[in-house]
Amino acid sequence: MFMKHVMNSQLSFLGCGNTCMLLASSSVFRRQHLLIRSLGVGSGIHNHTYCRNMQQHLSSVEVDAEGVIRTITPALDSSRHKGQAGKIAVIGGCREYTGAPYFAAISALKIGADLSHVFCTRDAAPVIKSYSPELIVHPILEESYSVSECNFREEDKKIISSKVLAEVDKWMERFDCLVIGPGLGRDPFLLDCVSEIMRHARQSNVPIVIDGDGLFLVTNNLDLVSGYALAVLTPNVNEYKRLVQKVLSSEVDDMDGTQQLLSLAKQIGGVTVLKKGKSDLISDGTTVKSVSIYGSLRRCGGQGDILSGSVAVFLSWARQLAADPNSNLSSTNPTVLGCIAGSAILRKAASLAFSSKKRSTVTGDIIECLGKRLVFLININFRGIILS
Amino acid sequence: MFMKHVMNSQLSFLGCGNTCMLLASSSVFRRQHLLIRSLGVGSGIHNHTYCRNMQQHLSSVEVDAEGVIRTITPALDSSRHKGQAGKIAVIGGCREYTGAPYFAAISALKIGADLSHVFCTRDAAPVIKSYSPELIVHPILEESYSVSECNFREEDKKIISSKVLAEVDKWMERFDCLVIGPGLGRDPFLLDCVSEIMRHARQSNVPIVIDGDGLFLVTNNLDLVSGYALAVLTPNVNEYKRLVQKVLSSEVDDMDGTQQLLSLAKQIGGVTVLKKGKSDLISDGTTVKSVSIYGSLRRCGGQGDILSGSVAVFLSWARQLAADPNSNLSSTNPTVLGCIAGSAILRKAASLAFSSKKRSTVTGDIIECLGKRLVFLININFRGIILS
Repeated sequence: MFMKHVMNSQLSFLGCGNTCMLLASSSVFRRQHLLIRSLGVGSGIHNHTYCRNMQQHLSSVEVDAEGVIRTITPALDSSRHKGQAGKIAVIGGCREYTGAPYFAAISALKIGADLSHVFCTRDAAPVIKSYSPELIVHPILEESYSVSECNFREEDKKIISSKVLAEVDKWMERFDCLVIGPGLGRDPFLLDCVSEIMRHARQSNVPIVIDGDGLFLVTNNLDLVSGYALAVLTPNVNEYKRLVQKVLSSEVDDMDGTQQLLSLAKQIGGVTVLKKGKSDLISDGTTVKSVSIYGSLRRCGGQGDILSGSVAVFLSWARQLAADPNSNLSSTNPTVLGCIAGSAILRKAASLAFSSKKRSTVTGDIIECLGKRLVFLININFRGIILS
Repeated sequence: MFMKHVMNSQLSFLGCGNTCMLLASSSVFRRQHLLIRSLGVGSGIHNHTYCRNMQQHLSSVEVDAEGVIRTITPALDSSRHKGQAGKIAVIGGCREYTGAPYFAAISALKIGADLSHVFCTRDAAPVIKSYSPELIVHPILEESYSVSECNFREEDKKIISSKVLAEVDKWMERFDCLVIGPGLGRDPFLLDCVSEIMRHARQSNVPIVIDGDGLFLVTNNLDLVSGYALAVLTPNVNEYKRLVQKVLSSEVDDMDGTQQLLSLAKQIGGVTVLKKGKSDLISDGTTVKSVSIYGSLRRCGGQGDILSGSVAVFLSWARQLAADPNSNLSSTNPTVLGCIAGSAILRKAASLAFSSKKRSTVTGDIIECLGKRLVFLININFRGIILS
């Protein structure tokens, strides 16, 4: 796993003079330069980073998300080996839901991760495995109904819970990011186990992207993520509403939504929140970025799962870039960069899928377009530097 | 769920004068105008709506079904969120049958619904799930063999039945339409549970499209649908024969089939009956419409499942249009519009599939053509108004 101990590293922006001269001819310099331009339009980066005192009438800054993708996507390099482009794990998949964890996990592979795992219940595993031989599927989670069917007592439940956790822990250190929530369901016993998995991930400084039923869990147990800078929440309209009610004890304010998002992210201790909507708004409590690239008006279920898997990969890549000793970029949180890139690639892919499938577009069609968009984006500006 | 409480709303036709002026430039007006022309040829809508006293020598009216599709298909709009284009649930799938509920549910997605669920038996669920990750499949129904295998007593059966119903009820209010019957089988215990599900759907004003073994259930228990204006029955030749025998105590009259269909629908209290055949005939006891668009001579099994899933979506859209305060159309039942549109899209898609696959056409080939036909139909007349 790359960069395990570079927790919450901020990309610090370029120095000048000798440093610049040394870097001038390197690809790292070019990528840094591109990132500066990508994160805001016009007169310098500081205009685009919100000061903590600017509490009123904030508007989000539309970023050059395609530039961010080009910047953080690592070069394919003959010296790199399997796993270095990312090892992602999705925690989700239960008796009812199997499509969602599959969508998240396969999207991670299609974006460019090397390995994609799913940790799900025993019932869900054969189905998810049948969707694709590309995924590594661990049938280890348990739901209440299966535990109670076996007449387990309370102490037996603890034993089962410990076993589940031990199974995940065997792998934890190898993962670059966990995606928690797609198709997780809301079974109390299962959610208790997943809470423990989140605590262990946090102890190991493994980033976590939380969506779907994971957000249900976190909204009711904010301590699971509070203050963890490597956590990303990706709420839709309804999930965001519940978060705002719980964290800010207020209703969603559409008039001053940017400020409210900033307050929300800050209140949860600097986690990154990607609020999905017509424009996706992203904040880590310090800045608010916006991605408004045109996507598709088709709202078929499953697009949020693509997003969570994509954010996980880009987030990992952004951390990898930040860990490069030649990289000296500041003021840009890798989790924010991951969200920007994930949002943009989903929108681009959805647009491409819609152009051919129109109203009958389903989530699988969009996933098939992820790679095509990524290749296109990277090739046009980085031919010879990044091999798509 | 849109329009849950606008039960059995009739699209009332246009007023004139100021109202027309106000609407003249709106897409709603254009859609109303198109619908008037679509539902009959020539000199006005009233010629094409049967008076209750015209009991003799009726012939059905061929409608401009493509115009109906264009009218009721909602515009894709950036302000809409996931679910607003339709949430459909199929009740079907047992130890023997898994293809039929899949065909119905995936057809709903390909027509343009946002979410498509299947409620089936535990044995059927992993198989249906494995067909596609796009569906949400609930393994909750039970058949007698599994109940008796566990040596359940009568009171245990009641407990199981209550659990099944509770699982469906959790979701009921969210659905815009249920499709009951594809691959349901005829297990007595399972059919008892499904009867209860139908009663609950009716209490919640959720429309139901009934096909296959659902028609077997309903024909023997007419009270399940009698007088429920949001029910649609889609019988084939044999299912229609049994319905006529049961309801009208007579044999099918091919010489005066239109009148008999009208009487049948009226006798069941104004449910809508779509009688499948060379021409599809549709009646709600007030009118009889006909769809004769050329489809395909290939009669592979499963096309009825496509039809039921498609009718469910179009019916939901027609109800949505009727709920639009700007819509002032009358004399046209949304369930009839849904049947017209479903019949037409299936025929169009079957024709397209046959043109390339000929005699080897199977149901999956037709499903793949649903989107293409829909795009073609909508685009040619509504460029700039409805984005396909």
